[in-house]
Amino acid sequence: MSTPPHSSTAPAAVTVLGLGRMGGALAAAFLAAGHPTTVWNRSPGKADALVVRGARRAGSVAEAVAAAPLVVVCVADDEAVHQLLDPLEGALAGRTLVNLTTGTSAQARANAAWAKERGAAFLDGAIMAVPEDIATDDAVLLYSGPRDAFTPHEPALRALSPAGTTYLDSDPGLAALHDLSLLGIMWGVLNGFLHGAALLGTAGVRAETFAPLAARMTTVVAGYVTAAAPEVDAGSHPAGDATLTVHQEAMRHLAEESEALGVNAELPRLFQLLADRAVADGHAESGYSALVEQFRKP
Amino acid sequence: MSTPPHSSTAPAAVTVLGLGRMGGALAAAFLAAGHPTTVWNRSPGKADALVVRGARRAGSVAEAVAAAPLVVVCVADDEAVHQLLDPLEGALAGRTLVNLTTGTSAQARANAAWAKERGAAFLDGAIMAVPEDIATDDAVLLYSGPRDAFTPHEPALRALSPAGTTYLDSDPGLAALHDLSLLGIMWGVLNGFLHGAALLGTAGVRAETFAPLAARMTTVVAGYVTAAAPEVDAGSHPAGDATLTVHQEAMRHLAEESEALGVNAELPRLFQLLADRAVADGHAESGYSALVEQFRKP
Repeated sequence: MSTPPHSSTAPAAVTVLGLGRMGGALAAAFLAAGHPTTVWNRSPGKADALVVRGARRAGSVAEAVAAAPLVVVCVADDEAVHQLLDPLEGALAGRTLVNLTTGTSAQARANAAWAKERGAAFLDGAIMAVPEDIATDDAVLLYSGPRDAFTPHEPALRALSPAGTTYLDSDPGLAALHDLSLLGIMWGVLNGFLHGAALLGTAGVRAETFAPLAARMTTVVAGYVTAAAPEVDAGSHPAGDATLTVHQEAMRHLAEESEALGVNAELPRLFQLLADRAVADGHAESGYSALVEQFRKP
Repeated sequence: MSTPPHSSTAPAAVTVLGLGRMGGALAAAFLAAGHPTTVWNRSPGKADALVVRGARRAGSVAEAVAAAPLVVVCVADDEAVHQLLDPLEGALAGRTLVNLTTGTSAQARANAAWAKERGAAFLDGAIMAVPEDIATDDAVLLYSGPRDAFTPHEPALRALSPAGTTYLDSDPGLAALHDLSLLGIMWGVLNGFLHGAALLGTAGVRAETFAPLAARMTTVVAGYVTAAAPEVDAGSHPAGDATLTVHQEAMRHLAEESEALGVNAELPRLFQLLADRAVADGHAESGYSALVEQFRKP
């Protein structure tokens, strides 16, 4: 799982800036794949375990950046990225920066312009995985920015995600936009589950009893997502098994159950509001994917 | 897929009231499994295709109910159930009614009491499947009500869902409560996907391009649901890979991206509001499952 693709060249040198739980997992994955790995963290003690495994500890950010052509950054937020890198100025020239720090598409585009001014290539990346999944087939990492910044470093980046290293687009903002969109789905599932657990809890049902059904439903709905996508692209929303009116009625039931049982009803009420608007726009007999038109409105 | 469990007895007679897309699929599944099947629908033409496959068309609801000990009802809503069955009065005595019409837990409990007054056994059921999935291993059907009303009819009910026939509890309200809770998860996924598709659409990304990543994320999060359940039951919410503060910040990013790109931000703003409240309640360093406490509040 952690060996790089067969290649006639030795694993390339890499630098990792930021050794929180995720940054530490990234550095460990590079080391395990045989990459000479230089690490830096604001509190240097975080590097100790990695040094034992063969990492080189840089004494400064500048020294770390000088150590490898590929510099991976994974810190708390965009402000922390600039606190680290702004002082370097010309020292970034000729490097490829891969920013895996969570942020917005606007920040990613601004960072791409900022890196260009300093003569550095820039990729923005998004990690769709927990630290434990790094270097396993469960990790998905998304990259956006110039293709020619990605291709030479793809073998090294595959150490982080052997099966899920995904180049999206030359627009550097697209990794962040995908990241946030996918997190929106994650929160949607988790909120649905926790709301359901609260509702069923009023009848004495344990969350662990509900979870297998909830997990199964979640997996089934992954298939509905695949089915809805061409409808969204075509702007055609056939009702299939249920019209929006049927969904609207069931949403009202969920909201009323919640209110009757003393459980928070804001989420189903918002779902219902979105469905109400779609029905008011003429989608009573449409299928669920017609709601995309409501999401497209500010 | 559609044969009943091995048994020394012949498949039992069943009646299906309501032949919409779902009711028609239920009757077809009973027929395919060899059950003598009597059908009734308000507009009798809906029975034609089933009669060709061997169903018996009843001339009235009373005649349909008299034809079998197991009577499955699948109509538009609770009002339609009572329009059909209220006039029958004593004719229901000795029957087992299985109501697969979508409704609330309060309606299910009221219907159980109503059936008891008429000498009928009553199960409330919920169909977690689209009509095409009926009689396949993808169908999950949930039942609640007295166990001794379920057990004798389990072999027949397995014709509808060979792998997913699930008895929940003697409380007749629990099928509806599970149904609505699971639908809440479904809407959570679909809304997350459609919101993401709207967001990515502003950058020219097609929904069909986004869908494989969205479906993969959805499947991955099914595993997070399983992990969150014992935390919910124990009231203990370790942060794991991300604290609520980290989620809160990413939710703010999603809301700001949405607003900046002219996309509806109500959903991420509500997510953020729930996270804000949890943080205000002292959960800044807790994991995501701490949000269950917010859902438990009216």
